[in-house]
Amino acid sequence: MPKPLKPLFERVAFIGIGLIGASMALAIRRAKVANVIVCCDSNPKARKTALDLGIVNEAFKDYGKAVAGADLVVIATPVLSYGAIAKAIAPHLKPGAILTDTGSVKKDVIAAVKPHVPKNVHFVPGHPIAGTEHSGPEAGFAELFQNRWSILTPLPRTSSKAVSKVADLWRRIGAKVDIMEPDHHDMVLAITSHLPHLIAYTIVGTATDLEGDLKREVIKYSASGFRDFTRIAASDPVMWRDIFLTNGPAVLEILQRFTEDLTALQKAIRKNDGKTLEDLFTRTRAVRRSIIDARQA
Amino acid sequence: MPKPLKPLFERVAFIGIGLIGASMALAIRRAKVANVIVCCDSNPKARKTALDLGIVNEAFKDYGKAVAGADLVVIATPVLSYGAIAKAIAPHLKPGAILTDTGSVKKDVIAAVKPHVPKNVHFVPGHPIAGTEHSGPEAGFAELFQNRWSILTPLPRTSSKAVSKVADLWRRIGAKVDIMEPDHHDMVLAITSHLPHLIAYTIVGTATDLEGDLKREVIKYSASGFRDFTRIAASDPVMWRDIFLTNGPAVLEILQRFTEDLTALQKAIRKNDGKTLEDLFTRTRAVRRSIIDARQA
Repeated sequence: MPKPLKPLFERVAFIGIGLIGASMALAIRRAKVANVIVCCDSNPKARKTALDLGIVNEAFKDYGKAVAGADLVVIATPVLSYGAIAKAIAPHLKPGAILTDTGSVKKDVIAAVKPHVPKNVHFVPGHPIAGTEHSGPEAGFAELFQNRWSILTPLPRTSSKAVSKVADLWRRIGAKVDIMEPDHHDMVLAITSHLPHLIAYTIVGTATDLEGDLKREVIKYSASGFRDFTRIAASDPVMWRDIFLTNGPAVLEILQRFTEDLTALQKAIRKNDGKTLEDLFTRTRAVRRSIIDARQA
Repeated sequence: MPKPLKPLFERVAFIGIGLIGASMALAIRRAKVANVIVCCDSNPKARKTALDLGIVNEAFKDYGKAVAGADLVVIATPVLSYGAIAKAIAPHLKPGAILTDTGSVKKDVIAAVKPHVPKNVHFVPGHPIAGTEHSGPEAGFAELFQNRWSILTPLPRTSSKAVSKVADLWRRIGAKVDIMEPDHHDMVLAITSHLPHLIAYTIVGTATDLEGDLKREVIKYSASGFRDFTRIAASDPVMWRDIFLTNGPAVLEILQRFTEDLTALQKAIRKNDGKTLEDLFTRTRAVRRSIIDARQA
């Protein structure tokens, strides 16, 4: 039997205890990555749930109390709130502490947080590529990050020791770690995550704008493809609003390409051009195979 | 214990034994809806698989041999092939036989098939709202239609007895039955199925057109939303080509609405209009709830 690993942190504080924060907390507890886990959340129901379900040892309304004495602070709220949170917690951060986050956008987040981070605190921006359409601490589960990627986007002057420690945390709770430039992260995520969500939100919106009868039928016959989009379009509204408000340029760039491709397909349908359709549909089928081979299906 | 139901048919013939044909055959056998099940398929591998897996009693290359003596003939091939198939089987259909199908488009299918159907054969067009991204008889399973809708679009002069018999078949293999006008069916499916597939094919195509590095990363980080689209975009290329070539007008009409909505969202992102984004994302979340309530999730 291998010798059990020592905890990486004595005390971890989550700012925001939703799906991601709660899942991390549960995984950290199970893998004994920290001894004490606390959280801060503006929503009293979330605090109560996190306590009741044993996700955290203590739940605070006050930022200062939550982060006091924490070796690791994890911001896991919708990304537009980051600047205000960084400003509020800064005076209470323990010297030598590591500050990380789980935000889906990195460039804007870094710009909002960095000016507030004290010199003796190590800021390691991060983003686990995992999630579900459910929200809140009650939706959290320790296995969420198993075999998923967690991307870190450290700044040029971030202590490599702090980066290693955050990477270790992710590996101990089952994830694989990649290091990336913030700009590049934001473009990759615009393609793989932000655009798919935007499209899903749009199509579900289009369907709900239909007249009464048709709208009822869309629900009834949703098993034919539509329901997969509704699952994606059921993700947390504020979290996603913030993503589009902070990663606008990258999303608009990839949306432009998508619109061009959609226009080409529209033309193929109008012109009865079966070859163009079949060629594309054959190519896209191969992509699915690659994802299965990469064990991300 | 309720008295076992008598088989509805002595002999059923499937034209095309892919995912849908094989699933129906397996379900019909399990529910004892027919005594003998045969198929015809142009693909020798599909015929062999259907025989090896015990999905059918006999597998023919020749249309005439397959439908000879069948009380029920089910066309379950890509929809553009329907006209030629109807023409080829017509002289061999048994007087009094029922002819049905599983095509995702109804108006064009009826126009292609009806002229060939002999006076003494009952044509009951149908479409089960069920499927997976997998193809071929090996992908078939008897439970595919459980709790799913099957839509019948009988013509004004179709014998109501024949319609009832096909409806009974679907109910005995677990489906719920709806009767609809062909035009209306094609519009509902354009919204719930054809547009979602078109969008998924487009977005996966856009991603595969990216430069080498980005393309690899899209696969790697696909768990963030993209992979759900790749599942839909892995559906059978020929089947989907045919759907867009036969239901073009309805698809283009709903695509127009979708494009307008997407343009509005694009503008909201460009203008940093968080309210519009959050309002839509909240509305679409409620749709998911409706689908869960309708037990179609």
